[in-house]
Amino acid sequence: MRGRTNTFGAVLRMRNSLATATHLFFQQRGFMYVHTPIITASDCEGAGEMFRITTILPDEHDPVTKAALITHTKEPKPAEEVKAIEEAHKKANEGKKDKKKKADGPREEDLFNFVPIPLEQQKFDYKKDLFCRPAQLTVSGQLNVETVTIGCGDTYTFGPTFRAENSNTSRHLCEFWMIEPELAFASLTDDMECAEDYIKFCIQYVLQNNKDDLEFFNDRIEKGLIERLQHVVKTSFKRLPYTEAIAILEEHMKEKKVTFENPVFWGVDMASEHEKYLTDKVFCGPVIVFNYPREIKSFYMKQNEDGKTVQAMDILVPKIGELVGGSAREDNLEKLDKRMTECGLKLEDYWWYRDIRKYGSVPHAGFGLGFERLVMMCTGIENIRDSIPFPRAPGQCEF
Amino acid sequence: MRGRTNTFGAVLRMRNSLATATHLFFQQRGFMYVHTPIITASDCEGAGEMFRITTILPDEHDPVTKAALITHTKEPKPAEEVKAIEEAHKKANEGKKDKKKKADGPREEDLFNFVPIPLEQQKFDYKKDLFCRPAQLTVSGQLNVETVTIGCGDTYTFGPTFRAENSNTSRHLCEFWMIEPELAFASLTDDMECAEDYIKFCIQYVLQNNKDDLEFFNDRIEKGLIERLQHVVKTSFKRLPYTEAIAILEEHMKEKKVTFENPVFWGVDMASEHEKYLTDKVFCGPVIVFNYPREIKSFYMKQNEDGKTVQAMDILVPKIGELVGGSAREDNLEKLDKRMTECGLKLEDYWWYRDIRKYGSVPHAGFGLGFERLVMMCTGIENIRDSIPFPRAPGQCEF
Repeated sequence: MRGRTNTFGAVLRMRNSLATATHLFFQQRGFMYVHTPIITASDCEGAGEMFRITTILPDEHDPVTKAALITHTKEPKPAEEVKAIEEAHKKANEGKKDKKKKADGPREEDLFNFVPIPLEQQKFDYKKDLFCRPAQLTVSGQLNVETVTIGCGDTYTFGPTFRAENSNTSRHLCEFWMIEPELAFASLTDDMECAEDYIKFCIQYVLQNNKDDLEFFNDRIEKGLIERLQHVVKTSFKRLPYTEAIAILEEHMKEKKVTFENPVFWGVDMASEHEKYLTDKVFCGPVIVFNYPREIKSFYMKQNEDGKTVQAMDILVPKIGELVGGSAREDNLEKLDKRMTECGLKLEDYWWYRDIRKYGSVPHAGFGLGFERLVMMCTGIENIRDSIPFPRAPGQCEF
Repeated sequence: MRGRTNTFGAVLRMRNSLATATHLFFQQRGFMYVHTPIITASDCEGAGEMFRITTILPDEHDPVTKAALITHTKEPKPAEEVKAIEEAHKKANEGKKDKKKKADGPREEDLFNFVPIPLEQQKFDYKKDLFCRPAQLTVSGQLNVETVTIGCGDTYTFGPTFRAENSNTSRHLCEFWMIEPELAFASLTDDMECAEDYIKFCIQYVLQNNKDDLEFFNDRIEKGLIERLQHVVKTSFKRLPYTEAIAILEEHMKEKKVTFENPVFWGVDMASEHEKYLTDKVFCGPVIVFNYPREIKSFYMKQNEDGKTVQAMDILVPKIGELVGGSAREDNLEKLDKRMTECGLKLEDYWWYRDIRKYGSVPHAGFGLGFERLVMMCTGIENIRDSIPFPRAPGQCEF
C-alpha cells in the first residue's frame, strides 16, 4: 500500500529525479555507465559482513542437504591389504583383456576406510555449490570498475550493494543502492571536485524539477528543508585535512569545554558526533575531510609520502553525516602489495586487481555515494527504511 | 584485462548507450524509475531456480555452523517425573519468596528429553538466519513494481536478476540485467506498442551515437549487422496470435515438408527452432506472438474469455529469438485467486500482491526485456558471456 500514500509517492518521485540527475551528470561529462557484478568471490572492503549465496542449502521444510556435507574422511587401508585386493582384481580381469573393455578396477570402498567425522567438525563442500566456491553478495563494485577505468577512461556504477550486519538502526539497510564513479588520470583534488559538483547538480536538479514534492517535505517532514538545500548549492564545501579536523575538535574541547562521548585523538576513526560537530557547529555546511590515517582506511588507497596518511576523503554534510567516501588509488604495485600483506589479504586472490598495476596503470581516483543517504538529504526523511520502496533489514524481506 | 581490448571496449560503450537510451525513452514518456528489491522471500515466476542467501553458512575452512542446525527434538518427560521436579523446585524456592527475586524454575533439561535426530533428517533453523526465513535472489521485480504502478502510474525497473540454473550455454547467465516497464491503464495492445517503440528507440539511438562501434562490429563480428538493425527500425513488427503461429508451422510442415526436432501442436511451449523459423523464414523480421495457452504461462496473466488463453505476448527477433516477454495482468481478484490455487501457490504468501486487487485496481500491463539480449542483438555478439563485463555462470564468479 506504500505506493498509494502521499509521502511514499513523493519519495519515489525524488528517487526517480535523483537517479535521472545521476545519469545526466555523468553522461554529460563522458563517464561510461558500467554494471559491476552482484555475486562475487572477493571482498572489497575486507570489513563488511557479507551474505553467502548458495544452491546447496535446502528448503525450510526439507532436511539438510547431506550431499553437500563432508561427513567422512578417506583413509587408505594397510598397504598389504590393498595389494592383495589389487591382485585379486588383476586375476579376475585376465580373462576379459581381449574384449577391449576397460578392466574393472577395485572399488574405492575396497581401498579406503571411510571414517565418520563428528558433526561439529563437518564441513560444507563448496565444490558442490554452483560457483564451485563460496560466493557472496558484493559490498562494492569499485575493484571491478577500476579494471574497466584503466582500459576505457572515466566510468561510474549505479547498482545495489549489501551488508549482512545485524544492526537495526534508522541508518542501516541490508540492501542499498550505490553510485561509484572512477576517474582516470585523476588526483584526490579532481575526485573532491567531481563529488562536490555531482552533489550540487543533484540538488539543483530536484530544486528545479520537484518543486511540489519539496514543498510537501518542507511542510510535513522538515521545516527549512528547501533553504538547507539551497544553502548547500551556494556554499563551497570546506576542505580540511584530517589532522586539522582533529586539532579543531581538541581545541574546542579544551577552550570551549565541548564534550563528546567518544574520545578524540589523532588516529581515531571519527564518530558521527564528531562529524556532526564539524558540519553543524564549526563550519555550518558541508565539509570535505581528507588525508586520513592509513590504519583506519582500506588497503587500496594511495599512500602519502609522510608514511602515516593516505589520500582518502569523506564528504560530511549537515543532518546526514558521511555522504561520500573516496580516495586516490594506489597505482604503485610494490606499495599496494606491501599494504595488502599488512592487511592480511592474500595477493593471489587479487591477481586480476594487481594485474592492472603490473601491466601499466594510470593515476586514478574515485568515490562512493550511498543513494539512500542522498535521498534522505534531499527529503528530510530521517529513517533510511522510508527512503527506499522495499527496505531490507534484519527480519524484513517479505515482499 | 577485458577493458583494454577493442571488442570489450566497444561492447561496454554499446551497453552504456543502450542503458542511456532506456532511461531517456521511459523518462520522456513520464515513466518513474523504481528500484525493486534484490533479496526477496517470494518467487515471482514459480519456475526459475533461485539462489539462497544466508548468513548461517560457515566459511570454506570452518566446520558447519552447528548453531543453525536443528539436531535434537524436545520430548516431554513422563508427567510424574516432571511433577516431582517442579515440586522440588517449589520447595527449594520457598525460602527466597520475600526477596522479590524471580524464583528459579526447573531447567529445560529437567523437563524434557533431548533426542538426537539422524543427520539426514536434520534441518536448518532459518529463524536464526538474518531475515528469520529462507531468502532468495530475485528472478523478477514485476510483482513488486506492480504495487507501485497501481499507486503512482507508469513505472520501470532496471536492475540485476538471477537464475541458479546449472546450464552452461551461450544463452544463459546466472546474473543478468533486466528492464521491466509496467503501464497503468493499459491493455495488451498498449503493452506491445510500448515494447516495439522502446526497441526501435534503442536501435535508433545506437545507430546515431555509436557509428564507429557499429562499424567495428559490422566488420569483425557480424557482416550485415548495420543493415539488419536498420531493417528492424523500419519494419512494423508482425503481430500474430499464438493459434495462428502454430497453424502456420503445421501448414509448412505439411505443405513444404519442413521438419523440426521438437513437436508442434496447439498447447506446446514453442522451442527456439520454431521461433527462429517464424522470424527468419516466414516473416523475415520481428514477430509479436500473443494470446498464449494459459497452461504454459504465469499465474498473473490476464485470462481471455475463451477460457483457454491468456493475454501474454512475446517479441521474437531474428538471430536472438525471444527478446521481450510481457502480458496484461489479471486485475480480477477472484480469477487471480483461482489461478494461483491451480498453480499450487499459497494465497497467504502473496497477501500484499492480492491487496492491490482487493483495495481497488486498474487494468495494467507490462513486459520484461533482458538487457544482455538487447546488447547481443545490437552488436552481433553470439555468446552472452561476452555481452556483460563480469559474467556469472556455473563455476565462474572469480573477479
